[in-house]
Amino acid sequence: MIRFAPIAATLPASVPFVGPETLERRTGRPFAARLGANENGFGPSPRAVAAMQAAATDAWKYGDPTSFDLIDALAAHHGVQPGNIVVGEGIDGLLGLLVRLLVAPGDAVVTSDGAYPTFNFHVAGFGGTLHKVPYRNDAEDPQALLDRATETGARLVYLANPDNPMGSWHKGAVIQAMLDRMPEGALLVLDEAYAEFVPAESMPDIDPDDPRVIRMRTFSKAYGMAGARMGYAIGHPDLIAGFDRVRNHFGVNRTGQAGALAALADQDWLARVVTWVAAARDRIAAIAAHNGMTALPSATNFVAVDIGRDGAFARRLVDALATEGVFIRMPGVAPLNRCIRISCAPGPELDILAQALPRALKTL
Amino acid sequence: MIRFAPIAATLPASVPFVGPETLERRTGRPFAARLGANENGFGPSPRAVAAMQAAATDAWKYGDPTSFDLIDALAAHHGVQPGNIVVGEGIDGLLGLLVRLLVAPGDAVVTSDGAYPTFNFHVAGFGGTLHKVPYRNDAEDPQALLDRATETGARLVYLANPDNPMGSWHKGAVIQAMLDRMPEGALLVLDEAYAEFVPAESMPDIDPDDPRVIRMRTFSKAYGMAGARMGYAIGHPDLIAGFDRVRNHFGVNRTGQAGALAALADQDWLARVVTWVAAARDRIAAIAAHNGMTALPSATNFVAVDIGRDGAFARRLVDALATEGVFIRMPGVAPLNRCIRISCAPGPELDILAQALPRALKTL
Repeated sequence: MIRFAPIAATLPASVPFVGPETLERRTGRPFAARLGANENGFGPSPRAVAAMQAAATDAWKYGDPTSFDLIDALAAHHGVQPGNIVVGEGIDGLLGLLVRLLVAPGDAVVTSDGAYPTFNFHVAGFGGTLHKVPYRNDAEDPQALLDRATETGARLVYLANPDNPMGSWHKGAVIQAMLDRMPEGALLVLDEAYAEFVPAESMPDIDPDDPRVIRMRTFSKAYGMAGARMGYAIGHPDLIAGFDRVRNHFGVNRTGQAGALAALADQDWLARVVTWVAAARDRIAAIAAHNGMTALPSATNFVAVDIGRDGAFARRLVDALATEGVFIRMPGVAPLNRCIRISCAPGPELDILAQALPRALKTL
Repeated sequence: MIRFAPIAATLPASVPFVGPETLERRTGRPFAARLGANENGFGPSPRAVAAMQAAATDAWKYGDPTSFDLIDALAAHHGVQPGNIVVGEGIDGLLGLLVRLLVAPGDAVVTSDGAYPTFNFHVAGFGGTLHKVPYRNDAEDPQALLDRATETGARLVYLANPDNPMGSWHKGAVIQAMLDRMPEGALLVLDEAYAEFVPAESMPDIDPDDPRVIRMRTFSKAYGMAGARMGYAIGHPDLIAGFDRVRNHFGVNRTGQAGALAALADQDWLARVVTWVAAARDRIAAIAAHNGMTALPSATNFVAVDIGRDGAFARRLVDALATEGVFIRMPGVAPLNRCIRISCAPGPELDILAQALPRALKTL
């Protein structure tokens, strides 16, 4: 009855991730520990909270469609020009716009099998053809990505550093070397959602005007503002200007703009969060070891825990933990799906995890 | 240097609207009266403000990607099913998704010359071919829209009721009759951003499962929450489900969801705003008359004021008012651009308008 356009007509009514609220409605009770979406329960800077609360009375005004003040502050923070930065409704929103700008129907795009599903959702959504290479030693494999990009004439190559869902991480020099070997016509989509958990001097040193790469950043993770939907991208000014051709100019909310500006100004809070997250990773590793499992090294605010069993068992464990009131997720494909993925959180929520995990295992 | 995809490559780096913050940065001082974007300075319900402030501490959590509670409340409010409603980042965001779902490159789309530019932006952005018919008596012309849709085999026909930028309004029976004459294969995009300013019983009576129409609604206007970016659409469940194929599932911010839910529950506040807006329209008409101009009838929270001169003069008046600290806008095409467009606002801002308008006129 509804005549969808050709690409839309072929798409499933898919949902990249089922939210915890949907799971809570199924079980009829709220999660006691929300550890599945790599949210940051240490929360935003108190200054960001205050800024968002103050902005609520101004909610009758549209946000500045240019996000001028925020982009200005971000440019100073990163030592780049304002023309190198675009702000959008989270990295998810920016990934969709990027695919739309660069990928025509049938164009090849390369990613890793098990990497961020929402990127794949956007590639499919604009008719791109997705090519996947396997992880290598639980990390995305730059050489395999480059080889496949060359073979397929890819327009985009996606790599998250640090990686989600495994938490692994490549040194800056590896990323820089990858950039130098990118095939002609391909753009590296470098998803740095978890970058703030890595010391700045260990991240790749990339010229902001380099036309071979775009870097995705967010206030959702280390800054603790997932609900505010504030993401940004750093790239060549011509590419960044391209977003103005297609973006929802008034799509970013005013409260989030105010919160992001205040959060960025409070780097002391960020540094404390990074310390707390590191301690939480150790705690999760200890809980895992106590249950006969092995935490993988992580440079993010989550830990992939190898449970030493297959994906079917891991799925049952995720479900059993949900029954125990603990929300976690797991990688979607083998061999990554021998792991469960647990987000860092304050002590009380990890206490709940520590109590729930042995109980959940006993039910299996 | 950047290889854009074919459609993106042809698009200008356009901005549908220049925001007041950009104009303020040009002049170096803030506007004393912000009357240009049809924002609602009476503001959101105090309960919505409180809900948004309370939600700020929960900003570390993603919003529910299904907007379940809000859709449930909206469905009850409108007497439809949850499957008839999709929530998105303002009507602007939903219009973009709708075009993407239904318009293939080269497909025809019909609108009125001078109607909402952001809709046109999205049609161009997905490669659609836009056909425009003139306004008739300062109102969008259903018969002309239908005729052009039939001629061109249009996929979408856009009509705002009440209209922006003229404030004019068609009775429900006119819209219902238009629907019955829609050509096969065309969908009516009925933009009802200003619907709450019209008595509910005077709006068209449309079956929510009617596959010939989708209705766009928003919390930006009567609910006074433009900065929160909360819009929704009501339509056939198959069309509504289609949005899940392409939307940014986590694009709506959590604070806005909380605010919208509280705003919807406070219909008393909404009723008071509607009364205040009606009084502000009368005040704007009086100010216009005092300056030898004629306010057009309006069913919205803004007034198109016929200044009895051409578009060039109107543009100079808009600029002169900006110099006087008053932000307004004007229609973009003749003959609508013999008017300026002034948003309703609380008394103090209209006092500023009353003082600034004669001064601005004197400078011309």
